[in-house]
Amino acid sequence: MSRKASLSGFHEWLPADRIVEQHVLDTLRSTFELHGFSSIETRAVETLGQLLRKGEIDKEVYAVSRLQAALHEDSSAESAQQKTGDPNQLALHFDLTVPFARYVVENAGHLTFPFRRYQIQKVWRGERPQEGRAREFTQADIDVVGDGALPFRYDVDVALVMAEALGSLPIGDFTIRINNRKLAEGFYRGLGLEDTAGVLRNIDKLEKIGADEVSRLLQSELGATEEQANQALALAAIRTDDTSFVENVRALGVSHELLEEGLDELAAVVGELHRSAPGRAVADLSIARGLDYYTGTVYETVLNGHEQLGSICSGGRYDALAAKGNRTFPGVGLSIGVTRLMMRMFSQSMAHASRSVPTAVYVALTHDDDWSAAQDTARLLRSRGIATEVAASAEKFGKQIKYADRRGIPFVWFTDSSGSGTAEHQVKDLRSGEQVDADPDTWMPPAEDLRPQVLSGPSDR
Amino acid sequence: MSRKASLSGFHEWLPADRIVEQHVLDTLRSTFELHGFSSIETRAVETLGQLLRKGEIDKEVYAVSRLQAALHEDSSAESAQQKTGDPNQLALHFDLTVPFARYVVENAGHLTFPFRRYQIQKVWRGERPQEGRAREFTQADIDVVGDGALPFRYDVDVALVMAEALGSLPIGDFTIRINNRKLAEGFYRGLGLEDTAGVLRNIDKLEKIGADEVSRLLQSELGATEEQANQALALAAIRTDDTSFVENVRALGVSHELLEEGLDELAAVVGELHRSAPGRAVADLSIARGLDYYTGTVYETVLNGHEQLGSICSGGRYDALAAKGNRTFPGVGLSIGVTRLMMRMFSQSMAHASRSVPTAVYVALTHDDDWSAAQDTARLLRSRGIATEVAASAEKFGKQIKYADRRGIPFVWFTDSSGSGTAEHQVKDLRSGEQVDADPDTWMPPAEDLRPQVLSGPSDR
Repeated sequence: MSRKASLSGFHEWLPADRIVEQHVLDTLRSTFELHGFSSIETRAVETLGQLLRKGEIDKEVYAVSRLQAALHEDSSAESAQQKTGDPNQLALHFDLTVPFARYVVENAGHLTFPFRRYQIQKVWRGERPQEGRAREFTQADIDVVGDGALPFRYDVDVALVMAEALGSLPIGDFTIRINNRKLAEGFYRGLGLEDTAGVLRNIDKLEKIGADEVSRLLQSELGATEEQANQALALAAIRTDDTSFVENVRALGVSHELLEEGLDELAAVVGELHRSAPGRAVADLSIARGLDYYTGTVYETVLNGHEQLGSICSGGRYDALAAKGNRTFPGVGLSIGVTRLMMRMFSQSMAHASRSVPTAVYVALTHDDDWSAAQDTARLLRSRGIATEVAASAEKFGKQIKYADRRGIPFVWFTDSSGSGTAEHQVKDLRSGEQVDADPDTWMPPAEDLRPQVLSGPSDR
Repeated sequence: MSRKASLSGFHEWLPADRIVEQHVLDTLRSTFELHGFSSIETRAVETLGQLLRKGEIDKEVYAVSRLQAALHEDSSAESAQQKTGDPNQLALHFDLTVPFARYVVENAGHLTFPFRRYQIQKVWRGERPQEGRAREFTQADIDVVGDGALPFRYDVDVALVMAEALGSLPIGDFTIRINNRKLAEGFYRGLGLEDTAGVLRNIDKLEKIGADEVSRLLQSELGATEEQANQALALAAIRTDDTSFVENVRALGVSHELLEEGLDELAAVVGELHRSAPGRAVADLSIARGLDYYTGTVYETVLNGHEQLGSICSGGRYDALAAKGNRTFPGVGLSIGVTRLMMRMFSQSMAHASRSVPTAVYVALTHDDDWSAAQDTARLLRSRGIATEVAASAEKFGKQIKYADRRGIPFVWFTDSSGSGTAEHQVKDLRSGEQVDADPDTWMPPAEDLRPQVLSGPSDR
């Protein structure tokens, strides 16, 4: 159900949509744990000094201050103007990578490397809200971080994990687009273009401004020849779902040691994905990823048919995720934009919950003083994992049934204690209307009714 | 493992402790859902206008502002001083009740009442950090909210749910202390003390300042006679684990209509808990709970033997949780201070995880190019829910085993593909040293090794 957020950029779900979100988060958690990733959470606030260490995104940061400090110490060193320049000023984290890097440095002595962690938390960015962009949103990150060195194979590993995780969600087909910074950088160097960051920055604009304009910029800004610009564009045009991109690159006739290294790495990632998760990934040599700290593999992911939504899962390899004196911690990881995904899932009715409450059974009351006995019946059902509520008062059965139906509870339980001997129990399926005898010690609902199911497509309710 | 937080009042757990926290949160969620509570989450920020509606705790609020707004519009209406008086100023929520009330009002048209919701989220308070008090902490709330009216029975219901939830945690024994505002108010009125809020406020100080001082204050501040003060103190001294408190109150010889109503309600809550969750709850007529908006039942909960920690689960009934024009939404609920509980669990070594990683099996590599085949083996194990990692390189077996052991992974998997025909698999239990043949299609670890277990008491590692 799509409703307008009461605070722009801050989305809240109704219970039925929250069930879909919980299903997504549970599925991600389960996949990550099956692959040996440990859960951590970091605090929501970091110091500005930590957050802006990479020297970017400061425009999006939410500063946090004790209201009373602002009220009472207004003219002191804590005033807002001065605080913004204070590296100890607190601010909400805008991603989970920077906090994770700090966590690794602080706890290095307590962790075993390579350390595999997943982290599912909210982050905040003060950006202008728009389609697919919220001010508060949930990210789900996996990273593997090494102490000093981290074998390249983890670049393949994390992509396999994410292909499996995303493939378990009711989001349809997706494509993980993979490139390698070494490949691009080596190619540009081999071409004779030394400002490789400048070339990448322009190639990154391809989708926005088109090849002709990028060619013009490469020539005017970076002094590339038309031939060099054409070659850079020819590289960016290569896209294959297997390792055949290697031949396509070689056909361009450029050679450089770093290019070879990048080709080997990208071929290893794409080759293994092609083998064990076919159709999930492509080598896409146009992918640049803005962030400067990536040093090898870069990933981004689009939902097929929803490409304009932007990437729903991105990341890459960084040779220095964190550093502590001379000690560096290289890492490789990917981050899913869960809220962006949920917004699209809801706006396109890609999935829905079979009911909006966890409750499977509503125990009706015949007499008001049956409540304690009804609680005992409910306890028996719950002991077998059947979510059960008990009516609060003995209204007419019709009214009790109507309440259960409005809440979407599939079964109503009736107990007749009026006869001599033990109570007699019946359970009614509100969808079929069928009412049958049932034993609170053994009765089970059909498996698909035990918990709310998350189903593909729009709800018919 | 107890470590100093790098930012005072903001706690972060190491992976092994996070497993214990996840176990606690999973257990709470599962119990709440079994009782038909729907999950919701609200945004982390509210407007100051919303947060301070109840007119309190403003000193603890963290204000949130876009850093760039503070930098660039400093002299404008957005400056910190003016913002603090601006009801649209954003701030982090300090509990989950105020946000839930707003959510109910905003979404009333989409909810079915009585609406049962649980909410497990972080909240923030800028208080001075101390034992049991953090600046960022997780709360786990349940509430039932009605539209216009809410049957009293939900006061019993939520207490039963919390008794079951807390009883499922590895925290030892606890006592839910329950009182009723109507009972106390009616008693004071019957005594002839009309400033019932004033009496409650003083009775609330009993544990801190003692009975003599409270008696003196009741006489000097509220004009009570010594006899009236003694009677109020006699009421507060009543504490029974069953409904016998009713007789004890009656023996004091005070009568009032509201007192009778309170006695009936409290007897219903304590009687049902005594019946179906014996030993979990007491009627404690000294419990006042500071918050003015409680209008009937009030609850707080202590860990037996850790009473000085304060309440770990509190709440009560409010006749107007929220209001929308003439429409009021009465509610009753309880909130667990999860972080306070975790801090005590860790500092007292009340529980630990059997291992610090989800991983059950580490697939070793014989040759470097066995990696893809090892991934296939791992995939078979994961398909049966066995968390599995694959070694990144074919180091000496001793080194691979040592790595698995340091990470606390119980099993290492070996594959020999050197012979003719199919590969031969063996699995080694690192604790016993036993190594046996195993089939990746069928092998299962013992149930207690499948996932990390959360066990009572300190770890022996």
